[in-house]
Amino acid sequence: MSEPSQTLDGWFCLHDLRKIDWASWRNVPNDEKQSMIQEFLTMVEGWQKIEEEENGSYALYTVVGHKADIIMMNLRPSMNDLDMIENEFNKLRIADYTLQTYSYVSVVEQGNYTPPKDGSDPLDNPNMRARVYPILPKWDHICFYPMDKKREGDDNWYSLPLEKRVELMKAHGMTGRKYAGEIKQIISGSTGLDDWEWAVTLFAHDALQFKKLIYEMRFDEVSARYGEFGSFYVGNILKTENVETFLHV
Amino acid sequence: MSEPSQTLDGWFCLHDLRKIDWASWRNVPNDEKQSMIQEFLTMVEGWQKIEEEENGSYALYTVVGHKADIIMMNLRPSMNDLDMIENEFNKLRIADYTLQTYSYVSVVEQGNYTPPKDGSDPLDNPNMRARVYPILPKWDHICFYPMDKKREGDDNWYSLPLEKRVELMKAHGMTGRKYAGEIKQIISGSTGLDDWEWAVTLFAHDALQFKKLIYEMRFDEVSARYGEFGSFYVGNILKTENVETFLHV
Amino acid sequence: MSEPSQTLDGWFCLHDLRKIDWASWRNVPNDEKQSMIQEFLTMVEGWQKIEEEENGSYALYTVVGHKADIIMMNLRPSMNDLDMIENEFNKLRIADYTLQTYSYVSVVEQGNYTPPKDGSDPLDNPNMRARVYPILPKWDHICFYPMDKKREGDDNWYSLPLEKRVELMKAHGMTGRKYAGEIKQIISGSTGLDDWEWAVTLFAHDALQFKKLIYEMRFDEVSARYGEFGSFYVGNILKTENVETFLHV
Amino acid sequence: MSEPSQTLDGWFCLHDLRKIDWASWRNVPNDEKQSMIQEFLTMVEGWQKIEEEENGSYALYTVVGHKADIIMMNLRPSMNDLDMIENEFNKLRIADYTLQTYSYVSVVEQGNYTPPKDGSDPLDNPNMRARVYPILPKWDHICFYPMDKKREGDDNWYSLPLEKRVELMKAHGMTGRKYAGEIKQIISGSTGLDDWEWAVTLFAHDALQFKKLIYEMRFDEVSARYGEFGSFYVGNILKTENVETFLHV
Amino acid sequence: MSEPSQTLDGWFCLHDLRKIDWASWRNVPNDEKQSMIQEFLTMVEGWQKIEEEENGSYALYTVVGHKADIIMMNLRPSMNDLDMIENEFNKLRIADYTLQTYSYVSVVEQGNYTPPKDGSDPLDNPNMRARVYPILPKWDHICFYPMDKKREGDDNWYSLPLEKRVELMKAHGMTGRKYAGEIKQIISGSTGLDDWEWAVTLFAHDALQFKKLIYEMRFDEVSARYGEFGSFYVGNILKTENVETFLHV
Repeated sequence: MSEPSQTLDGWFCLHDLRKIDWASWRNVPNDEKQSMIQEFLTMVEGWQKIEEEENGSYALYTVVGHKADIIMMNLRPSMNDLDMIENEFNKLRIADYTLQTYSYVSVVEQGNYTPPKDGSDPLDNPNMRARVYPILPKWDHICFYPMDKKREGDDNWYSLPLEKRVELMKAHGMTGRKYAGEIKQIISGSTGLDDWEWAVTLFAHDALQFKKLIYEMRFDEVSARYGEFGSFYVGNILKTENVETFLHV
Repeated sequence: MSEPSQTLDGWFCLHDLRKIDWASWRNVPNDEKQSMIQEFLTMVEGWQKIEEEENGSYALYTVVGHKADIIMMNLRPSMNDLDMIENEFNKLRIADYTLQTYSYVSVVEQGNYTPPKDGSDPLDNPNMRARVYPILPKWDHICFYPMDKKREGDDNWYSLPLEKRVELMKAHGMTGRKYAGEIKQIISGSTGLDDWEWAVTLFAHDALQFKKLIYEMRFDEVSARYGEFGSFYVGNILKTENVETFLHV
Repeated sequence: MSEPSQTLDGWFCLHDLRKIDWASWRNVPNDEKQSMIQEFLTMVEGWQKIEEEENGSYALYTVVGHKADIIMMNLRPSMNDLDMIENEFNKLRIADYTLQTYSYVSVVEQGNYTPPKDGSDPLDNPNMRARVYPILPKWDHICFYPMDKKREGDDNWYSLPLEKRVELMKAHGMTGRKYAGEIKQIISGSTGLDDWEWAVTLFAHDALQFKKLIYEMRFDEVSARYGEFGSFYVGNILKTENVETFLHV
Repeated sequence: MSEPSQTLDGWFCLHDLRKIDWASWRNVPNDEKQSMIQEFLTMVEGWQKIEEEENGSYALYTVVGHKADIIMMNLRPSMNDLDMIENEFNKLRIADYTLQTYSYVSVVEQGNYTPPKDGSDPLDNPNMRARVYPILPKWDHICFYPMDKKREGDDNWYSLPLEKRVELMKAHGMTGRKYAGEIKQIISGSTGLDDWEWAVTLFAHDALQFKKLIYEMRFDEVSARYGEFGSFYVGNILKTENVETFLHV
Repeated sequence: MSEPSQTLDGWFCLHDLRKIDWASWRNVPNDEKQSMIQEFLTMVEGWQKIEEEENGSYALYTVVGHKADIIMMNLRPSMNDLDMIENEFNKLRIADYTLQTYSYVSVVEQGNYTPPKDGSDPLDNPNMRARVYPILPKWDHICFYPMDKKREGDDNWYSLPLEKRVELMKAHGMTGRKYAGEIKQIISGSTGLDDWEWAVTLFAHDALQFKKLIYEMRFDEVSARYGEFGSFYVGNILKTENVETFLHV
């Protein structure tokens, strides 16, 4: 039995991915389209307001390729909030012209975390607070993927001693640090909440940086031997002022 | 050949997961919607009555994300009862606006069970009886997932000697016990009944506890080396008084 | 190269699993429903007649859960007969309200078979004959699953010497024998006919016996090290006199 | 690095599998059904003519079970021909009542082939010519499946020395030879053309022979250690004079 | 920890694969069909113009078999461009008669790349420039597949030392070089962008060369031990002057 590392947990997180049914959307009369888009934008404004009040955060991006057309990512204080967000969208008329192709439930976390020795609340530290209650950047590109740590034969992450795991994660973090300024990374834990153990959401100004970072990280022992990866979803920021153009058909 | 551990078996169990077809549901006239919701609530009242009579138990929760919108879990004395429950729902008019995305058939069990040495009926023991004929708690959150024990190369659970298995399960149980009061756990066996060997259903007041418990357990040797996990379904309690609001669109 | 064990082969076997489209079935006018059900029952009567004439056998059961609603299992002398049975159902009007979710093609077999030393026809032995041309019992519950023998690294069934395989299967058979009277088992081979190497179909008076038997067998070396299992389909007998009630909506 | 064995390549090959949408087909008025069937038969006559002229060959069979209802197999000189054959069917009106559930692209090949030492064209040898430009037999039953050679840990076919591979294939061929007259086998290579490395298509007078042959072969080292198999599709010959009866509903 | 090799990155790349819904397309009135085809051809002319201006490149091919009917491959300077290309097609009326069955996002790359020692821009070298900003050939056949390098037990590409990887890739390149003139190969990296690590797109005058090249390469240690392959998509060039005939039904 190997000692678990601790985590500091923050906001609950829902990634909600939708494909647009362009064929039926096209047939909606223009004024109805306008009104449906308006309802959607009103919902997004609500997300913005919550973000301004620091009660959550959101990201709205397109997704390139057949897996989805848009991704809506929302951070909130509780699992009930995630349900409300998902249902609020489902009840919009525009939702009838979308198909929910994937989703992901997780909790923003700071892993390999050591509680303050003086017994103080780690969230009194604004730095730590910002890591688990982050305001998502509105950078140009998003990259989202779920992942596991392997438990196969000799490559069993959960059987490694705590110090070894800390050491490997530290080296991995060093690779990530080279991309500071280029890439903003949100890690959320999903053991017991969804089908993989973690979700990784990256934001970048230049989409090529996703490839560079993740390719380089793959050579870190922690990825090379212990990483298992789900599907990758990449896309471009969808600003509210561009939603109408995006949906114009 | 390794000696099987014994199990004490109780109620049969059906997990039935449904996604709502919001687009077609929206188009149902309001009074028909009301009448369909009423039929559904009448069915749930029937479940409540059976629970009060201790002839079974039930849980009704939402599910967050694309995998389902609601989960209906029912415990009953026989496999025929499960069929009846599933068909009763299928024959409701509201069922036409749902898609059955997953289901699971199992039997509530007490594993690694040692029969009383005095030859008495173990079910005379009210504690033991409550474990295999449980009344499901109506706590805020649910977490359901199926699982297997690995049979791969050197990591073969079914080739371990009985004592080793008992020892590993005991250590695992110690981890679980730390969460007593926080999490209520129902284990049901499904070898020969469904695609995995066990179903685990957890109830919590705070959804974060699912993540904490299952993350911590993953470091137990029994999970780290021998656990294989299916999909995780998490959600929030759907009280009968909230069904109408939930379905209002 | 390892010497194959011999098999004695009997009837061809088709498992045909269907899900009912309750939403569209509901909308069929009652008298048409009646007439479609009558056509279906006439077909089943044909199966009964063939069974009485010992030219085949059949089983008709419900299936619990999302995988299917009914399973039709038919034994017949040839592959052409299987095609005819499947098409006869497809051409019934009621078939339009079903979806074929799974099927399985196999041949009832006696495995690890040693031909009579006196050169006589093994089928002159009525016991042996009944094993490969069985009349399926009309017991309360069914359990059907396909399976393979592993060929992975050190766990390669097909590389074991014949004597070792015979010995392992014999021990496995001893476990099964404990359930005589409780469970009736039909083994059919499907190497070269369908996606797994064997189909197992069990019948029981008490569905809990499926769990007990298969759980116990999993500790036999032959299952623990060499068994790979497909999906499990379980359900309850659907007698012709109950078909109308089952389909009443 | 292991030396590749050579292959002699012949006709391109398309397996095209379709499921019939019986519910919508049933609703086509009878005279339209007749006319659509006639168009289909005219296309098949075209295949027969090409076969008579030795510019290709074809097979038309039913498929038993849920995977498909019919399989159309066509051999032709080029990849463009395959496209034309597929599109010709797609453009028939009857195609609207079918669903393409699977297909396979390959090239008929003679594996482990040694070019003539005198430098002559191997296709001058009529025997060799018939192997790679075969006329498909019109026997009662078909069995089609794709397969790979394993590349896992110690079981890596592509790392074996050429002589070892030749030796293993030779032993495998000896098993096959026992079934000469019972089974006619077409091997086509698909590395770089489709998702598996080979397609195997067998024809038999008695469908039981598929099971006997493939079961026996599974004990050959080449299958036991190195074979990986896709889905198996089996069925019965569909003669043009029986197409109308087959489609009568 | 193993040292990553460097890559030189060029254009972003989108493979977009569509299946045609022939049944509904057939029912479009002829003049509307003409006008929809014209819109599609106008879009392709736009791609040609961009190619002439060397701001990107494109390929338009059919795909044989059930996986897709056409593949549209486009190279462009940015991820936003890929989104625009995909949406432009989605908004064409003809898109309503297609289903997007697969897609792939990647970046054309030169792998195992060593930057010029004199510090000059590698893209000043026209040879190198042509490799990462290639004009796709309009040869007769296409073959597209995604792939990974294995990370399993002893076969872990990412744990090999850099020199070993360079050596293995060099040997692999030698195999490829034999096919110069026969096959034109585009390698694009997709680590962090899509579900596999690389996409390979091959163009040939003779489709048989795909099978020969990839079969031969499979014996290279780099493929035999470390290669994992996704689905293969093969087809024939679809020239603009043939689009109307291709879609005529």
